[in-house]
Amino acid sequence: MGKNLTSRAEDYSKWYNELVVKADLAENSGVRGCMVIKPYGFSIWEMMQKELDRMFKETGHQNAYFPLFIPKSYFSKEASHVDGFAKECAVVTHYRLKTAEDGSIVVDEKAKLEEELIVRPTSETIIWDTYRKWIQSYRDLPILINQWANVVRWEMRTRLFLRTAEFLWQEGHTAHATEQEAIAEAQQMMHVYADFAEHFMAVPVLKGTKSANERFAGALETYCIEAMMQDGKALQAGTSHFLGQNFAKAFDVKFSDKDGSLNHVWATSWGVSTRLMGALIMTHSDDNGLVLPPKLAPDQVVIVPIYRTDQQYADTVAKGQEIVQLLRQKGIRVKLDARDTHKPGWKFNEYELKGVPIRIALGPKDLENNTIEVARRDTLSKELISQAEAVDYIVTLLDTIQENLFQKAMEMRVSLTHEAEDYEQFKRLLEEKGGFVWAHWDGTTETEERIKAETKATIRCIPLDGPVTPGKCILTGKNSSRKVLFARAY
Amino acid sequence: MGKNLTSRAEDYSKWYNELVVKADLAENSGVRGCMVIKPYGFSIWEMMQKELDRMFKETGHQNAYFPLFIPKSYFSKEASHVDGFAKECAVVTHYRLKTAEDGSIVVDEKAKLEEELIVRPTSETIIWDTYRKWIQSYRDLPILINQWANVVRWEMRTRLFLRTAEFLWQEGHTAHATEQEAIAEAQQMMHVYADFAEHFMAVPVLKGTKSANERFAGALETYCIEAMMQDGKALQAGTSHFLGQNFAKAFDVKFSDKDGSLNHVWATSWGVSTRLMGALIMTHSDDNGLVLPPKLAPDQVVIVPIYRTDQQYADTVAKGQEIVQLLRQKGIRVKLDARDTHKPGWKFNEYELKGVPIRIALGPKDLENNTIEVARRDTLSKELISQAEAVDYIVTLLDTIQENLFQKAMEMRVSLTHEAEDYEQFKRLLEEKGGFVWAHWDGTTETEERIKAETKATIRCIPLDGPVTPGKCILTGKNSSRKVLFARAY
Repeated sequence: MGKNLTSRAEDYSKWYNELVVKADLAENSGVRGCMVIKPYGFSIWEMMQKELDRMFKETGHQNAYFPLFIPKSYFSKEASHVDGFAKECAVVTHYRLKTAEDGSIVVDEKAKLEEELIVRPTSETIIWDTYRKWIQSYRDLPILINQWANVVRWEMRTRLFLRTAEFLWQEGHTAHATEQEAIAEAQQMMHVYADFAEHFMAVPVLKGTKSANERFAGALETYCIEAMMQDGKALQAGTSHFLGQNFAKAFDVKFSDKDGSLNHVWATSWGVSTRLMGALIMTHSDDNGLVLPPKLAPDQVVIVPIYRTDQQYADTVAKGQEIVQLLRQKGIRVKLDARDTHKPGWKFNEYELKGVPIRIALGPKDLENNTIEVARRDTLSKELISQAEAVDYIVTLLDTIQENLFQKAMEMRVSLTHEAEDYEQFKRLLEEKGGFVWAHWDGTTETEERIKAETKATIRCIPLDGPVTPGKCILTGKNSSRKVLFARAY
Repeated sequence: MGKNLTSRAEDYSKWYNELVVKADLAENSGVRGCMVIKPYGFSIWEMMQKELDRMFKETGHQNAYFPLFIPKSYFSKEASHVDGFAKECAVVTHYRLKTAEDGSIVVDEKAKLEEELIVRPTSETIIWDTYRKWIQSYRDLPILINQWANVVRWEMRTRLFLRTAEFLWQEGHTAHATEQEAIAEAQQMMHVYADFAEHFMAVPVLKGTKSANERFAGALETYCIEAMMQDGKALQAGTSHFLGQNFAKAFDVKFSDKDGSLNHVWATSWGVSTRLMGALIMTHSDDNGLVLPPKLAPDQVVIVPIYRTDQQYADTVAKGQEIVQLLRQKGIRVKLDARDTHKPGWKFNEYELKGVPIRIALGPKDLENNTIEVARRDTLSKELISQAEAVDYIVTLLDTIQENLFQKAMEMRVSLTHEAEDYEQFKRLLEEKGGFVWAHWDGTTETEERIKAETKATIRCIPLDGPVTPGKCILTGKNSSRKVLFARAY
């Protein structure tokens, strides 16, 4: 098996699709828009889940599970919510098939549901219908719940991991006694997401709020983390919503406060999805294949024995097993590939394609000289290390690689971030360089939509940090309190 | 909050339903037949998942994810499979809602799918459609994959955890080059399930095969583990299927063998579900509430401080924290409930209801005497232990409780297992004692169905172990090679 990847320079989009399939991450299924997540891809997603789940639990959240189906009537209760999701949902109308007279299998029209069920595109409605039963008093608050689930949004143009009809995600849904507490929760989760993106995925992100136009359907404020991909397109990597009392009002969820007053409950929701896999792939990978940050790599180190004779095979494998034991004792995920059915060159190629951070080669010469050859996936550089120093070296190198990937990604983002003083420059920057463009905006949805129609760029976020100097909108010349961040986006 | 549970003797079924809701395990949702798994219930399910997932990985399996939706045509390819599942499936027919002229939300008839999609009741068909692309040669085999997923079976009569329209499960799907290897895999997973049931759930199970009539739709052999509940009804706790080449033939999955011949692939599938929660609850719990085996208890130990004065509060909580630290160092999941808003009596009640295996009470007298009061949930007995011995005592006691629950459940099963020599005795045993009844059967589906119609008892399994003396069928008097295990079942 050769890699034969299309290069990024040649066709970035093709490179991405080929890489996802060839590195055994995912593939299209026979169901339109739905993907199969393959074992290797899924093992990376499991690494992500494990860390996120720990972070959620450390911030006081518990997991639960709510139904896949949402009655149409629930879905309709929050007006802006149904507007946002009605156009892209799978609808269950029947509950039985039957064998027709000609022997074919058909829907049994007698088994029509009285009320259609929507396959959840997100679970605010079914969850707030449940919270009504759980919340009477301030003593029942806060409720801090997360669920790991599959959701369905009927996308017409799909792309593996980035936009699929069904995807996997987590959705947090919290209920609070005060507005302040709910806002603090929504902000906290944005910070948790940023923390995860930067320290585990090695993907630098900008934190901010969405413009009204880009907000979640039903939210008063959407906090987000935005990342920059190598091709100059931005990717929204996670969102956290302050929902105000919208869902509490739609589902009549009130609580009696300490002073005896009856008030609607305040809400947040927040989610990240298998889309993060897309962000991870597009941030670090190169023309040789996937590049994984050590903290999320299912195998952090792979050891490949090099040999000709049976004796050499036995000796290098035995030494490899020794090193495996030593590295495992340090908590490192290491694999010895002792398969005699594949040549070392094939293995090198394979682990490069699959993004294993460190590859150790071990041949007869190394046994003589007490060395190992250590190859880094991120820099593609190799070094001879004495076996005595190997364990310490590898432990340190994993941290170095993690850090280097973040730095490289940060430099990439910096090189892809520009400021535009006027609309011509704005358009030129987008065309010639892509990336993030800081620009003044008058704060209206009209202007935002015109810019989008004319340039395909959207406001990615109004960053928490960044320049806050007032100026004039690049399109209308009207007053702008600060520059915001535009980009073309996935 | 009082427990006020209906007693098991009064109404076992009502007791179960009340317990599930009051112990915060699950509740019915607004969607017919679908449950909400509440945080406490879900945390037990997470404990189960974690151990099962480890056992699957230790036996060489990897996780992956396949689509929720199955095109109707896939579903129809394996004839007996569609017969088994067509009557109980949710069918997606449309992919959009719209706002009608009167402002209501309705299905957009223009958005009708060309081919209906079935919400997976099980994933053999979509997975074997995928395996066709993955398997060319014997080198691609075996494929050992598991997925954790939600599935939907449109049950008309539902019961929390035991039978719900949507439930959570894992489904393993493996592909093999030989019949022998596939059978060995199916048997291995039955043993893994039995191991989990007995050593983690403390639920004794009988291993065996299903009669042809009770087999999975599409299987050549179904291996199962069967448990006995306190009310004398059996519960199928897990199944593992040898699927022969049925799905490989239906989906045209062939591989070239070492000798160059082209053969259909051999298959297994195996699953356990949130139904295990029902088995866990009904095996051990009592009229005071849930009883959890320590290995699956989210909190294994809870410490409740007893105090009147602020000083006593400070002192007992401080000592409690000390004990928490010591127990955590031993890997014990322990919680100190220092809430000043609830009285000790309320807390005792609460943790009894929730089945926490060990409760430690710690009052001013204990501080004086260097003691703690240790209460066991399984026996409801209490003992004063010196603080110096506390940690070792608790470590040992958790094992003792785990073992005791298994022994009690085993005794319960033994007392609920009988042998019938003729049909009258068979019916009398079922009516008067319930439980498992060993009886001779002539091996035909006709006899099995008549017995079921007349007694509501089904063949639970043809056990791997057990008496193999020949005799005469209790119904027909025809030859029987051995007794099989009958019971009324959940």
